[in-house]
Amino acid sequence: MSLPRLRLAKNEDKRLRAGHLWIYSNEIDTQATPLKSLQPGQHVLIENAQEKVLGTAYVNPHSLICARLLTRDETSFDRSMLVHRLNIALGLRQAFFREPYYRLVYGESDLLPGLVVDRFGDHLSVQLNTAGMEAMREDIIAALIKVLKPASIVFRNDSSMRQLEGLPVVTENVYGEPPEAVQLIENGVKFLAPMIAGQKTGWFYDMRPNRAWLRDLVPGKRVLDVFSYVGSFGIAAGAFGASEVWCVDASELALDFAEQNAELNGLADRFTAVQGDAFEALKALKEDDQRFDVIIVDPPAFIKKKKDHAEGLKAYRRINEMAMRLLHKDGYLLSGSCSMHLPREDLLEVVRASARHLDRHAQTLAEGMQGVDHPVHPAIPETRYLKAVLSRIVLT
Amino acid sequence: MSLPRLRLAKNEDKRLRAGHLWIYSNEIDTQATPLKSLQPGQHVLIENAQEKVLGTAYVNPHSLICARLLTRDETSFDRSMLVHRLNIALGLRQAFFREPYYRLVYGESDLLPGLVVDRFGDHLSVQLNTAGMEAMREDIIAALIKVLKPASIVFRNDSSMRQLEGLPVVTENVYGEPPEAVQLIENGVKFLAPMIAGQKTGWFYDMRPNRAWLRDLVPGKRVLDVFSYVGSFGIAAGAFGASEVWCVDASELALDFAEQNAELNGLADRFTAVQGDAFEALKALKEDDQRFDVIIVDPPAFIKKKKDHAEGLKAYRRINEMAMRLLHKDGYLLSGSCSMHLPREDLLEVVRASARHLDRHAQTLAEGMQGVDHPVHPAIPETRYLKAVLSRIVLT
Repeated sequence: MSLPRLRLAKNEDKRLRAGHLWIYSNEIDTQATPLKSLQPGQHVLIENAQEKVLGTAYVNPHSLICARLLTRDETSFDRSMLVHRLNIALGLRQAFFREPYYRLVYGESDLLPGLVVDRFGDHLSVQLNTAGMEAMREDIIAALIKVLKPASIVFRNDSSMRQLEGLPVVTENVYGEPPEAVQLIENGVKFLAPMIAGQKTGWFYDMRPNRAWLRDLVPGKRVLDVFSYVGSFGIAAGAFGASEVWCVDASELALDFAEQNAELNGLADRFTAVQGDAFEALKALKEDDQRFDVIIVDPPAFIKKKKDHAEGLKAYRRINEMAMRLLHKDGYLLSGSCSMHLPREDLLEVVRASARHLDRHAQTLAEGMQGVDHPVHPAIPETRYLKAVLSRIVLT
Repeated sequence: MSLPRLRLAKNEDKRLRAGHLWIYSNEIDTQATPLKSLQPGQHVLIENAQEKVLGTAYVNPHSLICARLLTRDETSFDRSMLVHRLNIALGLRQAFFREPYYRLVYGESDLLPGLVVDRFGDHLSVQLNTAGMEAMREDIIAALIKVLKPASIVFRNDSSMRQLEGLPVVTENVYGEPPEAVQLIENGVKFLAPMIAGQKTGWFYDMRPNRAWLRDLVPGKRVLDVFSYVGSFGIAAGAFGASEVWCVDASELALDFAEQNAELNGLADRFTAVQGDAFEALKALKEDDQRFDVIIVDPPAFIKKKKDHAEGLKAYRRINEMAMRLLHKDGYLLSGSCSMHLPREDLLEVVRASARHLDRHAQTLAEGMQGVDHPVHPAIPETRYLKAVLSRIVLT
């Protein structure tokens, strides 16, 4: 039973040969192999214009990215291949982490395009972001059970990517009884995270290495965590020995978890939550003459689309400068961005320009990216999205 | 007693206003203020074309970079200012390091242009890279003694930068009795380094955070360190629990220290030194059918000047691909570059292309830069030079 074929137009195999996995609909020789005859999620053989097979892929004829490569030969991609790829992904995480708290699968970078799996011990929070992964949902559940023997699996299928793929946006308990809140350990610090009602899969493992920067820096220091979510930076700072921790977030649910996390780590008496818009909150702190030794500013993506770049950049600049004004002399600023459309150099420039504007000297101490459980696929720039910059802002 | 003035030509104050410290000789209004009348190392007031004072600087009329800014007002830069700046620099290092082993001063980034100080406990290894710093040598010695009370100071004034500044190239013991070999602790691992006869200041603290990547990864693994110098990566891997460590270097002195470092850390029985050209050595290891779980390739700068870029890139590509061929299935490659002229993206591309050429899938797990004791000055791209990339090379 051989797979249908999808033929690329002349010279359109370059990107795949460089290692990329995506095929755009305008790269298909639709005369030879019409896309319209295929079902969303169906598997095909990809061939170049010379009819040489490049591998197998799943398709979505209704999406701009109309196919994503699964293998580089004619091996059909079935449940046993899924198990194999999950084991390769697991091997990487187990090489670096002694405890089962990590992103287990990061889509394309783990050669499982469109699939995201976050592991919270026995509980899995999963995103199927493409029609191809949706079509394999039963195999995915079975493969995850086989490899990990989890207690529960929830599908957080509420991403905007699913809309582009023409898929329903929904959260589903698909195995066992996923708890509302899960426990996890990151950099040795315990957290509770809202797996069902929280953002994305419930926790952002991607910032882990950049949170670890705080370990040596914060003992005895006064720390402010802006856009704190459940306190991922702030509570870590407290656990590392900060004398005082303030968390600012707009979400009541997030701050409720932050307070629980403060208690979990025995720092409730050093913890203050401020609910509200970050810009307003920083303004109020300034008027109240509050100062901090270390400030973390890790906003949600201010630049969601390329066309928002100029506007978003201004927002990054504004919030970083506001934070700098709240620093004690020679204080530290940790500035993050998860905007794929904000180049790393732009974030460095935000820090430089803000410091100069205040007549301070900025020293960039560390530039970080997403952790090892979010590997970058070097042929797919979209997989390299997270930035963090640690600076000292010196009064000369 | 006011300082002589040096006037910038029209609009040539832009770079300084952005935070930079350098002034090029073609930016001076030499009609108004001839450079030739000044002595190398002399202090001046810098003014813009409108005769507004921008700060004080030291000059070298014989150098392309004819002046470097020391202050942003009319405060004269004397011994007490040196002490002040050293204390600001020390504050940064003490915020991150519990033990006195670090680069204490990193030139421009610490607002001490041209000065480099590496600290090995009680011993200091210093570079005066400009005529301006040379002219302050007695003040520098006095300030270092005041701030740090060291047992010894050596001037490793043998850098190529000194030649450009028209300064003699020489190593001098200037205080106490600098020992041939110094002890240091990095990431919890003890090392001996050749402070007098070794490369640069004797040790490369800049790679510290990227060496720490090995901690969780290497237990029980077979590790190869190519261009090992005194074993900075390899010995660390052994101390972190690697089952076997091989170090390759061309220098007999370096490998002699590597062996001492293996003994110092109780891993002499797991240690093998290979002296020779790295390319030849990797070829021989391949012919001998040797395989490793983790390989470090951290060459000396293959690209010393911009014009060497294409040739140097080929060398990076060749050595990285040779290393990949020595990896076990799903092994790890840590690839470094200290070439300022090799952009970070080029190093990622080297890894991508080498892996594809071998039909492997590369996953970029971490991108590192120089450590916090080598801060980047965000307005001076030259201070952001070090790159390290950790990848897993997957057989799919």
